[in-house]
Amino acid sequence: MTEFDRIEQFFAPLAAPFGFALRDDAAALPTKPGHDLILSKDMLVEGVHFLKSAEPFSLAQKALRVNISDLIAKGAVPSFYMLGLATTPAQTDDWFRAFSNGLAADQKTYGLSLLGGDSVRAGTDPTANLVISVTVFGYVRTGQMVRRAGARPGDHVFVTGTLGDAAGWLATYQVGTSDPALQPAYDRPNPPVGAVDAIRRYARASADISDGLVADADHIARASGVHIDLYADQVPASKALVAAFPDVRQRLALMLSGGDDYQSLCTVAADKAAIFSQILDDHGVSATHIGQVSDGSGVTVFDQNSDIMQLDRSGFTHF
Amino acid sequence: MTEFDRIEQFFAPLAAPFGFALRDDAAALPTKPGHDLILSKDMLVEGVHFLKSAEPFSLAQKALRVNISDLIAKGAVPSFYMLGLATTPAQTDDWFRAFSNGLAADQKTYGLSLLGGDSVRAGTDPTANLVISVTVFGYVRTGQMVRRAGARPGDHVFVTGTLGDAAGWLATYQVGTSDPALQPAYDRPNPPVGAVDAIRRYARASADISDGLVADADHIARASGVHIDLYADQVPASKALVAAFPDVRQRLALMLSGGDDYQSLCTVAADKAAIFSQILDDHGVSATHIGQVSDGSGVTVFDQNSDIMQLDRSGFTHF
Repeated sequence: MTEFDRIEQFFAPLAAPFGFALRDDAAALPTKPGHDLILSKDMLVEGVHFLKSAEPFSLAQKALRVNISDLIAKGAVPSFYMLGLATTPAQTDDWFRAFSNGLAADQKTYGLSLLGGDSVRAGTDPTANLVISVTVFGYVRTGQMVRRAGARPGDHVFVTGTLGDAAGWLATYQVGTSDPALQPAYDRPNPPVGAVDAIRRYARASADISDGLVADADHIARASGVHIDLYADQVPASKALVAAFPDVRQRLALMLSGGDDYQSLCTVAADKAAIFSQILDDHGVSATHIGQVSDGSGVTVFDQNSDIMQLDRSGFTHF
Repeated sequence: MTEFDRIEQFFAPLAAPFGFALRDDAAALPTKPGHDLILSKDMLVEGVHFLKSAEPFSLAQKALRVNISDLIAKGAVPSFYMLGLATTPAQTDDWFRAFSNGLAADQKTYGLSLLGGDSVRAGTDPTANLVISVTVFGYVRTGQMVRRAGARPGDHVFVTGTLGDAAGWLATYQVGTSDPALQPAYDRPNPPVGAVDAIRRYARASADISDGLVADADHIARASGVHIDLYADQVPASKALVAAFPDVRQRLALMLSGGDDYQSLCTVAADKAAIFSQILDDHGVSATHIGQVSDGSGVTVFDQNSDIMQLDRSGFTHF
């Protein structure tokens, strides 16, 4: 099948009205008065962000969801995306069919559609890696994007969902055990879409957790010019992670520094903390109070004995 | 240098006001009332779209210009871009410095700025390819984007600049001669930015020439539901191309099917043809009348003897 036929058969049905059924070189997004257009871009590379053996259906979902996660943390409902693919001979017509079906499934789940993109060869050599480049777009009312900068002393620090499952699966995969209970978190993250309105209304600062809890907390602390205390024993873990990593020190390393969680990390004024977590709960999203914002700079993590945990620059803990 | 430091030192100075100095996970583009936001995305892969030896300064410009070219052909002035980079160990701090200087130079030339992006590793193996993914944004007044669909019988077909230099250089490189007079066209295309207003006002259909003149004319013919005649002997060549390829058949193959030209291919109503080419000329852009639109479908190319030239599906000529 030619690139033209693939676009026509697999991707044109996914196109937004402004995408001209992908038959043009460009899309034309109309103005939405009174709103800002929020944009974020995350790339995924084979062998770096996903395995060569990744199933195309869930891989398409992962590529969308790591981007959707960014918009949710900004308080923006995801509406559109651009898709760039650098493909290898392993991307057969069947692969494209399954990949586009995965996109279609998540377009329904999250209510977004395809604006356009580009499809190129990933290289001339057989070892070339598949690269997926997504840019996602959503609207918020003018000035209402929740930034990294905005945390203030006294704010409570919340995290959605549980942390560490994706990194935990990768750790089990790398030692050859590959825990099936943890794999879904790695293959197909579940960003907390039910949290988006509460984040926009109540979070003063917010970011998604892609680099790891401590690293992303540090991004917020730097951007906001504040210090953040995190309480390691408050950070929520799934039952599957506890079962796979009964050693609390191993588990904490995954939860604090593993990354690939795609949950939201938010700071909320103390007097809004109760309503924030209540609204999230009403929308089926768990929110856990895991820390406090104060004057100063940097991030301090306390262990279950209220001792300070030592972290290196990358956020990884040393034991 | 860490990724954080690189962003701060090399890319933050390039950021648009809406890009939060690249210190957030997202950008927030304000509404521009009465306008559509035009978006286009082109990816470049090492070994496919540029050589491993490409200089980072001009490579940055190529990555921007192949995208700017799309917007010009749509009648949209380029204003912003998102940048995705999948890099290898060959991308040292010096490489990033030169690459960001190339971006800065073209930001001045074309008046655009950086909204945000993503930077990832291109792979774990040493043969991984550098991938550059740019999405470019520009405004036009609501509904004024010039589409592929829009050509009507009777329209004159125009092309800007000259064609075939980039493909000609690649052909000389591949046989080991590497003509220096043609190389700039491959390394750093010159999209016809002076044509953007005239295209928006007078072109009924338009596309940039990336796949090759005949292939891109075919895109317009399909999208518009028309037939296009092209007159090969009218298609403009540079002096350098004529010197490098004195054989007219070889030269025509490069001009008709080579691609990588990043000139604009437009159809213009017959009674606007004179003013269209006059305005382009006033803006320092040559516009050449190379064909006609008529009822029907497909593209026919006539040679200097008014005989029909045979082309295969990819647009490449056979002699």
